[in-house]
Amino acid sequence: MVNGIERPLDLLNNSRGKEVLVYLKGDKQVVGTLLAFDIHINLVLDNIREIENNEVKRKFGLTFLRGDTIIFISPASTALKKEV
Amino acid sequence: MVNGIERPLDLLNNSRGKEVLVYLKGDKQVVGTLLAFDIHINLVLDNIREIENNEVKRKFGLTFLRGDTIIFISPASTALKKEV
Amino acid sequence: MVNGIERPLDLLNNSRGKEVLVYLKGDKQVVGTLLAFDIHINLVLDNIREIENNEVKRKFGLTFLRGDTIIFISPASTALKKEV
Amino acid sequence: MVNGIERPLDLLNNSRGKEVLVYLKGDKQVVGTLLAFDIHINLVLDNIREIENNEVKRKFGLTFLRGDTIIFISPASTALKKEV
Amino acid sequence: MVNGIERPLDLLNNSRGKEVLVYLKGDKQVVGTLLAFDIHINLVLDNIREIENNEVKRKFGLTFLRGDTIIFISPASTALKKEV
Amino acid sequence: MVNGIERPLDLLNNSRGKEVLVYLKGDKQVVGTLLAFDIHINLVLDNIREIENNEVKRKFGLTFLRGDTIIFISPASTALKKEV
Amino acid sequence: MVNGIERPLDLLNNSRGKEVLVYLKGDKQVVGTLLAFDIHINLVLDNIREIENNEVKRKFGLTFLRGDTIIFISPASTALKKEV
Repeated sequence: MVNGIERPLDLLNNSRGKEVLVYLKGDKQVVGTLLAFDIHINLVLDNIREIENNEVKRKFGLTFLRGDTIIFISPASTALKKEV
Repeated sequence: MVNGIERPLDLLNNSRGKEVLVYLKGDKQVVGTLLAFDIHINLVLDNIREIENNEVKRKFGLTFLRGDTIIFISPASTALKKEV
Repeated sequence: MVNGIERPLDLLNNSRGKEVLVYLKGDKQVVGTLLAFDIHINLVLDNIREIENNEVKRKFGLTFLRGDTIIFISPASTALKKEV
Repeated sequence: MVNGIERPLDLLNNSRGKEVLVYLKGDKQVVGTLLAFDIHINLVLDNIREIENNEVKRKFGLTFLRGDTIIFISPASTALKKEV
Repeated sequence: MVNGIERPLDLLNNSRGKEVLVYLKGDKQVVGTLLAFDIHINLVLDNIREIENNEVKRKFGLTFLRGDTIIFISPASTALKKEV
Repeated sequence: MVNGIERPLDLLNNSRGKEVLVYLKGDKQVVGTLLAFDIHINLVLDNIREIENNEVKRKFGLTFLRGDTIIFISPASTALKKEV
Repeated sequence: MVNGIERPLDLLNNSRGKEVLVYLKGDKQVVGTLLAFDIHINLVLDNIREIENNEVKRKFGLTFLRGDTIIFISPASTALKKEV
């Protein structure tokens, strides 16, 4: 269950190449494939969909997200699997 | 009563693998199992439930929470035990 | 009257194990026993009561409070003693 | 698909001389040619168009953008290619 | 007139043991005796009165004030002396 | 077209002694002659005009602008040349 | 015209002992004599007048102003000289 996560960045490292849900300040949600991250939690995502009221509002390709606008990052598979 | 807590991070260290209540800026509350933390108070929680008006609003699996959005972190057992 | 306080953290050090009133951003007030603090003014409090309009709204046990949400910290004994 | 992106700044490096869409705090969007960036994500863009409701509101030439006002940066070609 | 003030912290050093008026973010004003300060402008004040509309709203004893909530600090004697 | 700009500060260096348009947080715009800057993007401008609805609202002489209130800086000549 | 200003702090250094207009976050304006400053742009001003709608609202004597609440600082003589 713990998946070998010792430090918070281990979860991001395990999620490279996988879909993640990212929740941004200002109540924005995006889903995309995590390609890269750094210690400031700057991210590069690919194939991004901005989600609003459970619908895709906009799509972007490769995108750089600044870390200080991020609230949480959740691998989409586990997020969806456990959704009620 | 003091539980060997010399520094604030000792409480987080003692809470690994246990449920914690996390209060976020913007009046969000989540409960989940604490897997990892770092000195920026970035957290990884598992089996998260977002709580609104005492009801579970959404569920997430493994999730990375950025430290600068966090107000407080309370081990859920002691929180519940002492709730009026 | 000065109680040997040379630097601001001396007051926190003198208050370990005692009740303190903590005023948080967003007009939240909590009272609890100060167990630990660090240079970021992260705190661990025990036996916390959240106060609203002079009434206890919620109670928590051991809790980690992030320093950057704190406005002021006042040992409760002196706060109460001098309350009009 | 990954385009040799190991770290987030690699995407900015690959985008030099190309059009990028930049989303700023306060819901501002600009499109321009990325000439330079640094580790604070300060940018220099050329030939900027400020976009509002899918229309060009204002145009600027060479412009320095401070990093801490930036939410995300998306190379415009991939953004447009994948737009629905 | 200059009172030997070469650097901003010299004014705080000269004000130890004296009353100061502190203006906080969120339009809060307190008056109290300055006991200690550090380079983050964290303060310890004693015998604090919170002022609202020229009236004392609340009183506190020894209190730690976090520097990042402070806008300005004015020795109360000079503030009052020059008040119209 | 690129004007020898390798790093973002190169644009500011090239703009010394020239007019720049500076956009500040809180929707303030000023135009003035750039005399000096540092790595925090603190600026000194001379002969400043504050612009509101395309009209000059106020004028200032030599002025120090703190970097963290700045959103973007655009040399006024290129801004005007490309204005529609 | 340039007054030997190579770096932004040179303007503050040249303004010691002179009147400056300081514009603070939250639309506050004060005028006072600059006695001291540091690299955080913390200031000590003397003989401060808080200005609202071109009228003096309050007066203070020696005052410490925290740098992070400051938007701009303009020597009052040049500000007044060029006022329309």
